[in-house]
Amino acid sequence: MKLNIALLAGDGIGPEVIDQAVKVSDAVAKKFDHQIKWTSALTGAAAINAVGDPYPDETHEICVKADAVLFGAIGHPRFDNDPSAKVRPEQGLLKMRQKLGLFANVRPTFTFPSLMDKSPLKRERIEGTDLVFLRELTGGIYFGKRGREDNENTAYDTCTYTRHEVERLAKKGFEMAMQRSKKLCCVDKANVLETSRLWRETVQAMEKEYPEVEVSYEFVDAVAMRLVQWPNEYDVLITENLFGDILTDEASVISGSMGLMPSASVGDKTSLFEPIHGSYPQAAGKDIANPLATVLSAAMMFETAFGLTEEGKAIRAVVNKSLAKGIVTEDLADGNKAYKTSEVGDWLAANL
Amino acid sequence: MKLNIALLAGDGIGPEVIDQAVKVSDAVAKKFDHQIKWTSALTGAAAINAVGDPYPDETHEICVKADAVLFGAIGHPRFDNDPSAKVRPEQGLLKMRQKLGLFANVRPTFTFPSLMDKSPLKRERIEGTDLVFLRELTGGIYFGKRGREDNENTAYDTCTYTRHEVERLAKKGFEMAMQRSKKLCCVDKANVLETSRLWRETVQAMEKEYPEVEVSYEFVDAVAMRLVQWPNEYDVLITENLFGDILTDEASVISGSMGLMPSASVGDKTSLFEPIHGSYPQAAGKDIANPLATVLSAAMMFETAFGLTEEGKAIRAVVNKSLAKGIVTEDLADGNKAYKTSEVGDWLAANL
Ligand SMILES: CC(C)[C@H](C(=O)O)[C@@H](O)C(=O)O
Ligand SMILES: CC(C)[C@H](C(=O)O)[C@@H](O)C(=O)O
Repeated sequence: MKLNIALLAGDGIGPEVIDQAVKVSDAVAKKFDHQIKWTSALTGAAAINAVGDPYPDETHEICVKADAVLFGAIGHPRFDNDPSAKVRPEQGLLKMRQKLGLFANVRPTFTFPSLMDKSPLKRERIEGTDLVFLRELTGGIYFGKRGREDNENTAYDTCTYTRHEVERLAKKGFEMAMQRSKKLCCVDKANVLETSRLWRETVQAMEKEYPEVEVSYEFVDAVAMRLVQWPNEYDVLITENLFGDILTDEASVISGSMGLMPSASVGDKTSLFEPIHGSYPQAAGKDIANPLATVLSAAMMFETAFGLTEEGKAIRAVVNKSLAKGIVTEDLADGNKAYKTSEVGDWLAANL
Repeated sequence: MKLNIALLAGDGIGPEVIDQAVKVSDAVAKKFDHQIKWTSALTGAAAINAVGDPYPDETHEICVKADAVLFGAIGHPRFDNDPSAKVRPEQGLLKMRQKLGLFANVRPTFTFPSLMDKSPLKRERIEGTDLVFLRELTGGIYFGKRGREDNENTAYDTCTYTRHEVERLAKKGFEMAMQRSKKLCCVDKANVLETSRLWRETVQAMEKEYPEVEVSYEFVDAVAMRLVQWPNEYDVLITENLFGDILTDEASVISGSMGLMPSASVGDKTSLFEPIHGSYPQAAGKDIANPLATVLSAAMMFETAFGLTEEGKAIRAVVNKSLAKGIVTEDLADGNKAYKTSEVGDWLAANL
C-alpha cells in the first residue's frame, strides 16, 4: 500500500519524538511491504517564526492532500504569559482542527501493568481502567463569537452547538460503544447550560437507534470526581469541547502512563494522530523525551486511518517489549539505565 | 452575642445533617454564652413542591435579614433527566447566589490524618494537602444570556465577565494568600477564551498591590492534571464559575474526606455556609448520612461570619475527637460500629 502522510513536528520536543515515530513507521512499512511518503510541514511557534502564521496555507494544503497527518506538539512558553500576543501557536492548532474538519478527538486512557505503580492513584482504583473519551473538537466556546465591550472592561465568549454537531459526535460514540462494552456516558452540565440540554436531548433521541447501548448522563462536575475515584467504571464517554479539554487531561494522569497516551482527531475525511503530551520546552533538544506516545499514535494511525491492524499490533507489541526490557527514557527508568529518545526509537525499529 | 441565622435545610439528606449542625451550634452557643435565633425557610425541590419556586421571596427575605445562612443541600433525581422541566431545584441555588450577592465560593480541601487511607490517591501524594479554591459564583456562563435559535436546533450560552467582577474575587484571593503561604494561582484558559484573558490581565495588574504574593497562572486543563498528581503543591487558587465548579469537585475527592468538607459563599454582606456534598437522595430519611461536613460548615460560620474563632475551634476539636474515638457514620466506620447521623450529632453536642 502507498501511504501518503503529512508530518507536522511542531515545537519543543515535537521534532525529536516525531523522528522516532517515523523510524518505527518506516520499519513497519518495510516489514509489511508498504511505501510511506512523508511530507513535512511547519506549524506552531516554528511556523510563526518562519512565516508569521501558526498554521500556514501551505501546511494546510499538504494536510489536505495527505491520507493522514502525524503531529508532534505545539506551544511555546514565550506566548503563555502574554495576554496581548496577537498570534499564538495554539491558534494554529484550532485553525487546523477547524479547516481539516477534525470534529472528534479520540482519547483513550488505559493502563500498562508495568507502569501502574507510577500512577498517583492506588492500584486497586486503576486496575482494569480502559476508557475512551470522544471530545467534540470544532465547536462550542472554542469557536464562538468572543470579544470586548465597554472600553475593554467587559469580555465575553459564546458557546454554540447545533443538533447536527452533537449528532455526528454522538454517532461516533454510539458506534464505538457497540464495538466495546456497549456503555456510553454523555457528560454535560444540563442543569445549567442550554447547550448541554441540547446535547442531552439529542443523545436521548438517538438512544432508540442503538437499543443495545446502555446510556448514562452525568454532570461534568460529578465526572471530574468519579474519574479520580473509580475510573475503571467508565468505558466510552462523549462530551463537548471545553469539558473534553479538562476531563481528558485529568483522565490522562490517572493511569500513570501519561507519557504513553496516543490520540486521534477524526472527521469526515482527513485524520490526525498525536501524543497527548505537550511540547515540554524544558526538555527540547536534549534527546531525553519519551517517544512512546508518538510511536503509539503512529500505531493508531495504521489501524484507524489505513485499516492496517496487523501493523498497529506489531508496533504495540514492540513497545510492550521495550517496556518489559527496560529500554526506556529517564521518566520511566526508575533508577535503572535511561536510554535516549533516539536510542529508544532505534531499538524499536530494529526489534519490530 | 445574638446570632440571627437563617436555616435552609433543602432536600434529601439536607434536613438530617442540618439538625446535627443546629445541635452542635446550640451547644457551642450555650458554652460561650451566645443566643442563636434560627429561622427556617424553604428551598429546592421542597420549595417547588410547597410553593412552586425553588427560592421563594419569603426565603430570600429571611436570608437578607439574617446575619448568616446555614444551608443543607438541594437537588432531586426527579428533575435530573428531564431536560424540559421548567422549574429545577438548582435554579433556586443560582437565584439565591445572585440575589444574596454571594460572589465568592470558598472551598478548602485538607486532609485528616486518620482518613488519609480512604483517599483514592497514594498517601505520599496527598500528605500535607491544604489548599483552598476561591470560585467566582455569580458571573460567567452560569448567568449569561442563553437560548435557542433555528427552530430549537441551535443552542447557545454566553460567558461574560467584567473587570470589576474579576477584581473583587481576586482581591479576596490575594488577601487569603497573605494570610496563608503567600502563593496564589490564577486558573484560566487564556490561550483560548477572551474572558480568561480579561481575568489574567486583571490579576496581573493587581500583582503590584501585593508584592509579597507569588502569583502563578495555569491553564484549567493543566490544573485538572496537577490536582491529581501533586495537590499539595497548591495553596490558594482563584478561578471563574464553571472552572471552579469542575475543579473544586475534583479537589474534593482527593483528600479521602469528601464527607467532611465544608464551604462558605461570601459577598459584600450576607454569607452562607454549606457542606460540599449533595442531597444524596438514596440515603434520605435513613439517619445514616455523615453530618460532619455540615457541622464543620457551622464552625466556618462562627469564625468567618461572626469572628468567633474560639467557638469554631471548639467545634473542630470535638469533631477530631469523634473521629479519633470512632463515633462516626457508616461511611467512615470501616467495619466497626456505625453510629446514626443523630447519634453523632448528640455525641458532638454532649462532648463539646
Ligand atoms: C492548546 C490548547 C488550545 C488545546 C485545547 O484546549 O484544545 C490543548 O489544551 C488540547 O487539549 O489540545
Ligand atoms: C447544582 C449546580 C447548579 C451547582 C453548580 O454548578 O454551581 C453545584 O454543582 C455546585 O457546585 O454548587
